[in-house]
Amino acid sequence: MNFKPYRKDYEYSYTLGMFPTIELLHSVPEQIVQVVFSSQYRPSPGSLDVQEMCHDQHIPWTVNDRLIAKLSPKDNCYLVGIFRKYEKPVRPDENHIVLCRPGNLGNLGTILRTALGFNYRDIAIIRPAADLFDPKTIRSSMGALFKLNFSFFSSLEEYALRFDHDIYTFRLNGNESLEHAVHIGNKLHYSLLFGNESSGLLEDESKFGIGVVIPHSSFIDSLNLPTAVGIALYEFSKGCFDSSNDSFRIH
Amino acid sequence: MNFKPYRKDYEYSYTLGMFPTIELLHSVPEQIVQVVFSSQYRPSPGSLDVQEMCHDQHIPWTVNDRLIAKLSPKDNCYLVGIFRKYEKPVRPDENHIVLCRPGNLGNLGTILRTALGFNYRDIAIIRPAADLFDPKTIRSSMGALFKLNFSFFSSLEEYALRFDHDIYTFRLNGNESLEHAVHIGNKLHYSLLFGNESSGLLEDESKFGIGVVIPHSSFIDSLNLPTAVGIALYEFSKGCFDSSNDSFRIH
Repeated sequence: MNFKPYRKDYEYSYTLGMFPTIELLHSVPEQIVQVVFSSQYRPSPGSLDVQEMCHDQHIPWTVNDRLIAKLSPKDNCYLVGIFRKYEKPVRPDENHIVLCRPGNLGNLGTILRTALGFNYRDIAIIRPAADLFDPKTIRSSMGALFKLNFSFFSSLEEYALRFDHDIYTFRLNGNESLEHAVHIGNKLHYSLLFGNESSGLLEDESKFGIGVVIPHSSFIDSLNLPTAVGIALYEFSKGCFDSSNDSFRIH
Repeated sequence: MNFKPYRKDYEYSYTLGMFPTIELLHSVPEQIVQVVFSSQYRPSPGSLDVQEMCHDQHIPWTVNDRLIAKLSPKDNCYLVGIFRKYEKPVRPDENHIVLCRPGNLGNLGTILRTALGFNYRDIAIIRPAADLFDPKTIRSSMGALFKLNFSFFSSLEEYALRFDHDIYTFRLNGNESLEHAVHIGNKLHYSLLFGNESSGLLEDESKFGIGVVIPHSSFIDSLNLPTAVGIALYEFSKGCFDSSNDSFRIH
């Protein structure tokens, strides 16, 4: 097959480098077409040998420097996982993170990584949005994408009609401070809703649900989006961490 | 004068674009050499006219498309502030953020923005470190740098000898969870200490002070650094926000 540099409308995407490729092999091996290695690939001492993982999991692999150079914009990439894009819809009976039109690939990836860190596995995305499957998003998620569920919606209204969740809408003029907001709400599950990095939420959207603000000084316009999401997940998941197995109970 | 594209060892630096240049004009006008405008510069409706600001503050300004092109790597930059690098040392009688060898310009800028957002004005940096005055750092700080104090140290030991602060050391194997750590400590002021994005803290460094962990699931190796700093500042500054004037009291 003739693989090309990544494009958003392409049915395949790529993991560039060791970390996201290992996550791909762990979490969605069934979507892998093949793993391509540079002739300079060597397993790092003490870490997993990805060629061995491929062998054990019966995943096709090959050594092909030209293909690596074609698929990876960076010079120091020694392996690339080629996989089919796939669907893994959000679960109705879990808490969600809802991102309205996230605009930046790196921010989106960072948010995915943080979400997995606080055990929020279900990410709803209101389009238009930065490409979830772009290799840059995957890289900045450190491969967290492969452990998450995600669904796309054309409007927040469409999302809100589908799920009977308490919606917490993070905005600069929210009525409730984050610290208090966690005690409001009465449904079984909730959704934490964040707007675009620059333009925030549309007027219609900001009327949804419980308006929440993360208090910050007037010296800055707003917190950076991934930072705001991190603070929100930290506060909402408090008390759910089980240190005996380093993981969060279902929120 | 003959200004060149930015270099770390250069005695000048640049604000690229409207937002950081306005912050520069507000906060450290005395260091400005001149502000350069593109011939395409137009004040946005409803926002400040930077040419007028320069005029009012007696700051030299000029229109020079070639100089803009030389100093700004991006095409859509319509103004550049040229300023002398300066010192503005951290204050001993305030709480500090201590960054050990921050490696990434964008992360460093984001941390500065978040610090200002939670009213932590004093940033100690243990070298080697990403360049605080790089135009990319300034841009990602949204100009927050100009409202902050900062000092550089060659080791954490040197820092700790200078300031009699409680030191909270954020690390993956900290003994205290963030939520509990805020109640420990008995000195008048404190320092929140964070390691490098990839390599974390040196063994010696991680023995300093009170070891703090932000609990996260074992599915990720660590939180993204600016996100971890944001969560820490959020928790430590709780209860200090005065909503009557949208600012934090001294912590």
